[in-house]
Amino acid sequence: MEKTTGYHVAIMGATGAVGQQILKTLERRDFPIGKLTLLSSARSAGKQIQFRGETLTVEEAVPESFEGVDIALFSAGGSISQKFAPEAVKRGAIVIDNTSAFRMDPEVPLVVPEVNEAAVKEHKGLIANPNCSTIQMVAALEPIREAFGLNKVIVSTYQAVSGAGAQAIDELNNQTKSILNEEEIKPEILPVGGADKHYQIAFNVIPQIDQFTDNGYTLEELKMINETKKIMNLPSLKVAATCVRLPVETGHSESVYIEIGQNDVTVEDIKKVLSTAPGVTLQDDPSEQVYPMPAMAAGEDDIFVGRIRQDLDEKNGFHLWIVSDNLLKGAALNTVQIAESLVKLGIVSTPQHS
Amino acid sequence: MEKTTGYHVAIMGATGAVGQQILKTLERRDFPIGKLTLLSSARSAGKQIQFRGETLTVEEAVPESFEGVDIALFSAGGSISQKFAPEAVKRGAIVIDNTSAFRMDPEVPLVVPEVNEAAVKEHKGLIANPNCSTIQMVAALEPIREAFGLNKVIVSTYQAVSGAGAQAIDELNNQTKSILNEEEIKPEILPVGGADKHYQIAFNVIPQIDQFTDNGYTLEELKMINETKKIMNLPSLKVAATCVRLPVETGHSESVYIEIGQNDVTVEDIKKVLSTAPGVTLQDDPSEQVYPMPAMAAGEDDIFVGRIRQDLDEKNGFHLWIVSDNLLKGAALNTVQIAESLVKLGIVSTPQHS
Repeated sequence: MEKTTGYHVAIMGATGAVGQQILKTLERRDFPIGKLTLLSSARSAGKQIQFRGETLTVEEAVPESFEGVDIALFSAGGSISQKFAPEAVKRGAIVIDNTSAFRMDPEVPLVVPEVNEAAVKEHKGLIANPNCSTIQMVAALEPIREAFGLNKVIVSTYQAVSGAGAQAIDELNNQTKSILNEEEIKPEILPVGGADKHYQIAFNVIPQIDQFTDNGYTLEELKMINETKKIMNLPSLKVAATCVRLPVETGHSESVYIEIGQNDVTVEDIKKVLSTAPGVTLQDDPSEQVYPMPAMAAGEDDIFVGRIRQDLDEKNGFHLWIVSDNLLKGAALNTVQIAESLVKLGIVSTPQHS
Repeated sequence: MEKTTGYHVAIMGATGAVGQQILKTLERRDFPIGKLTLLSSARSAGKQIQFRGETLTVEEAVPESFEGVDIALFSAGGSISQKFAPEAVKRGAIVIDNTSAFRMDPEVPLVVPEVNEAAVKEHKGLIANPNCSTIQMVAALEPIREAFGLNKVIVSTYQAVSGAGAQAIDELNNQTKSILNEEEIKPEILPVGGADKHYQIAFNVIPQIDQFTDNGYTLEELKMINETKKIMNLPSLKVAATCVRLPVETGHSESVYIEIGQNDVTVEDIKKVLSTAPGVTLQDDPSEQVYPMPAMAAGEDDIFVGRIRQDLDEKNGFHLWIVSDNLLKGAALNTVQIAESLVKLGIVSTPQHS
């Protein structure tokens, strides 16, 4: 599609679970698009996708696909990003990459606009979108850090299957039906597409997201630990993570224990800070059974925080329950917000099609 | 039923989810029963239940039901225990109570046989069976405490609906079917039967188990905190808990962070201790994707421990993933094990029917 004013945007992985959400998010936030190029692997090329009332055809990505592109949004897996992101940058595009391929590269800003928007200014062509479970946690913790300091984080996650892609959603639904019908099941996707073993997710809990590393942590856990320090610019922050997959379609939940930098802070103080924090909705009234839940957070832009309690032993210890739509704030929305930051801060070149 | 040798056992709440598991557990562990009396509220009285090939009729409980009873196993809710347990004790029975009614009473031993079996000796008629999520955690942590000391515990739970009774299991299954059929749902049981509000559990996560207290903690969280200290006899142990309900039928999982009393302990040391711990099965081989999961733990007696990792910041910090069948070790099995301890330690009076 072409429009008289706006940027040339390319979406790599347009047919995936996150790609679809990126398209919807660009549309409803009215991002200034002059031309939209939809790209994918050969397998999905040729598919047709609706955008602002027009039908667009997905093209197989080649290096030349990025000629003239201003902003390229990548969410087609790490190896695709490694192959094509440098090609896009070489052709003058700014790449916002949803995969983990470049996140810990010191040359690449890792951005959650509510936390470190200014970091986009340091881009050298590539900007990384953090891991879904990291984004929602740092956006909720940053206002607390700003007000009271932050020394330590211990998080246990409750993650939805859509974080593993559209195939994992199908697997959850089909497996659930089979189990309710007392039919045999054959797990094929979760916990990790390429892994040796696959396990039942319906009515089960799998304490593995992504591959294991030598120290017994999964890559997902190390992402949360390392990305949190990088985004918050707190290299000596103590962070521990246990990442767990649940039979939930969309919406990641997190049980988070923090130790802040002050000893005289109350739950009310923390609630006050979060009640005006950008992108955060406080949902915390135990007397009315008000707390965040993924079934209610799915489809919403915000990060929901509740169950805020003071630790019973540590004066500077607090517990929080953080829930957000992993496909929106955890992926597509944050990606589009980064693109919006590029426009707002005048970093992206003037629209070629104006 | 009567048998020439064995104890007169009464089961209060014989038709409930835990009561049914108690019956199965007594049968398969061949507990020495001479006479078995099945009791319930008026609502369930008259139901027929099979035990060791005989058909028994459930009777409505009255104080006189406990005449001649040696051991009474209660699992019919706190108010029933408060009403009938003293009547049973008055008539000479030893009551093993599955509810929270008497657990924190300093006169009442709170027992997990693998942890504090000798405490049964101090009974004054009543012995309490701990909360399901507490039992599996303390049984896994006690061998670690014994070997290395224990200073601090932070747990986030992943609890199955069967902990909320048979009605909650039906609610999960029916709701799941409705959602898959795109029919409307009407939550009526979870998170708490008598609460004002009920929430969807299918494909959702509810961060509330039991009622809230004034400090923002739920009763379930306070049970885990207080019962852990009592069972382990560590009044100054630091314990924090966040308790969460999941769309899983049976099997509670726990993400547990601990700080032990020594700084030079390795993951291998902890694995070694747990590999010979009573009632514990080590399931920990990341290279083979071996870790505990509720779908595999359901129906098993043991407590499964895996994902053991050293914290990346605290030398004495470790992370564990603990899973067990909440109806078995978390309830029925531990109850029957307490009864077995009474026999083994010669605390229960000689069988009246020998």
